Amino acid sequence: MRIDVLTLFPEMFEGVFGASIIGKAREKGIVELNTVNFRDYANNKHNTVDDYPYGGGSGMVLKPEPIFAAVEDLIRPDEPRPRIILMCPQGETFTQRKAEELAAERRLVFICGHYEGYDERIREHLVTDELSIGDYVLTGGELPAMVVIDAVVRLLPGVLGNESSAWADSFQAGLLEYPQYTRPASFRGWDVPEVLLSGHHGRIEEWRRRQSLLRTLRRRPDLLEQADLTPEEQRFIEEERRRMA
Amino acid sequence: MRIDVLTLFPEMFEGVFGASIIGKAREKGIVELNTVNFRDYANNKHNTVDDYPYGGGSGMVLKPEPIFAAVEDLIRPDEPRPRIILMCPQGETFTQRKAEELAAERRLVFICGHYEGYDERIREHLVTDELSIGDYVLTGGELPAMVVIDAVVRLLPGVLGNESSAWADSFQAGLLEYPQYTRPASFRGWDVPEVLLSGHHGRIEEWRRRQSLLRTLRRRPDLLEQADLTPEEQRFIEEERRRMA
Repeated sequence: MRIDVLTLFPEMFEGVFGASIIGKAREKGIVELNTVNFRDYANNKHNTVDDYPYGGGSGMVLKPEPIFAAVEDLIRPDEPRPRIILMCPQGETFTQRKAEELAAERRLVFICGHYEGYDERIREHLVTDELSIGDYVLTGGELPAMVVIDAVVRLLPGVLGNESSAWADSFQAGLLEYPQYTRPASFRGWDVPEVLLSGHHGRIEEWRRRQSLLRTLRRRPDLLEQADLTPEEQRFIEEERRRMA
Repeated sequence: MRIDVLTLFPEMFEGVFGASIIGKAREKGIVELNTVNFRDYANNKHNTVDDYPYGGGSGMVLKPEPIFAAVEDLIRPDEPRPRIILMCPQGETFTQRKAEELAAERRLVFICGHYEGYDERIREHLVTDELSIGDYVLTGGELPAMVVIDAVVRLLPGVLGNESSAWADSFQAGLLEYPQYTRPASFRGWDVPEVLLSGHHGRIEEWRRRQSLLRTLRRRPDLLEQADLTPEEQRFIEEERRRMA
């Protein structure tokens, strides 16, 4: 996969793109990552990429020309147009399903604004997707782009070895993960639950499934509506709901 | 504010903590940011910080000792215990309200796992908050910690000048932002809406408010339930809902 990121702060990406899973995926040649400073496409003597909003108001707005020019410079005319993703608070909320969808693409282009808004013509005539990573205010689209790229790259074939584990399990199964314990069996007087030391696989599985259900019920009851539960698990949840009420 | 981050990948933070708003806030002395590699607290000959899960299963689990030791080394015994935040998929979903709550603290400590799960005793006996930034799977807690730190630091007094703008407006008003335009008035034949060039402030305000309502209705109708609407705006939304149906 090839990923290009348009940003005014390419240096923000260095630590993240060099480290860990993303760094390894680059070394293995599974993903090619490239940042483009779209200020290089400003094409005016002060190198400005933003301007005051028409109609007044505070803040600045990113001009259409540099962003169109930077994107068009990345794509050969004979090439199919890739997904062009604008990171913005007004976008569709990013989810694991969207990560899976994007992981099937051969090429992605991300556009990151910073402080400023985007001229609406960028949304209407250039981008294919607008994404938000959550309902909170950030200083720009750079961290959101890194989050989406991390979620997508780890899904590419050959990227994850046996390192998946807990971070992966939580949403893919539709329930929150059960409590995990490792050595020491007793730490400052806090002991690992006996069932986990029993060696009895059936009981361990049952305990873990119930703990997952309980944690999901307490923390994210919204997830239960789409979870695949047996009739017995449904009854267990109903009983717990009554107990909590 | 002082922020400490426990991580196995301190180099991931350099680009982000050095740049932009967070970098400026550090230069001004408004926030002190410190990363701690908790592998330095492993205290065993192979420097291991994780181990196999009790009860079996794939993946590794972060051991309690290094993380307890690293946190305790940061806090003087006579000091009040700060908020200690575990970044994990099972956590409470981070929101702008949570960012405001954390921005009122004097000190925050973040714990970032990577691939692995956390020994449950860390959750039960050390941390004060568990946070998730959204329903997607990432390779670790580092990017989520950066996202939370960015959202919190930009709220600290003296950090933002007049740079707030669009990124700020979207959630704080409870509606998505209206379309923004800047020069040129015509770009590739795509024109700025006439009302914005009219100079008529009343009409511009009305157009923007309606555009905000329409965009929120189409993209994030869930936000409308908590928005502060006039009776006339309620009627406008109801009419649009019927038209869309």
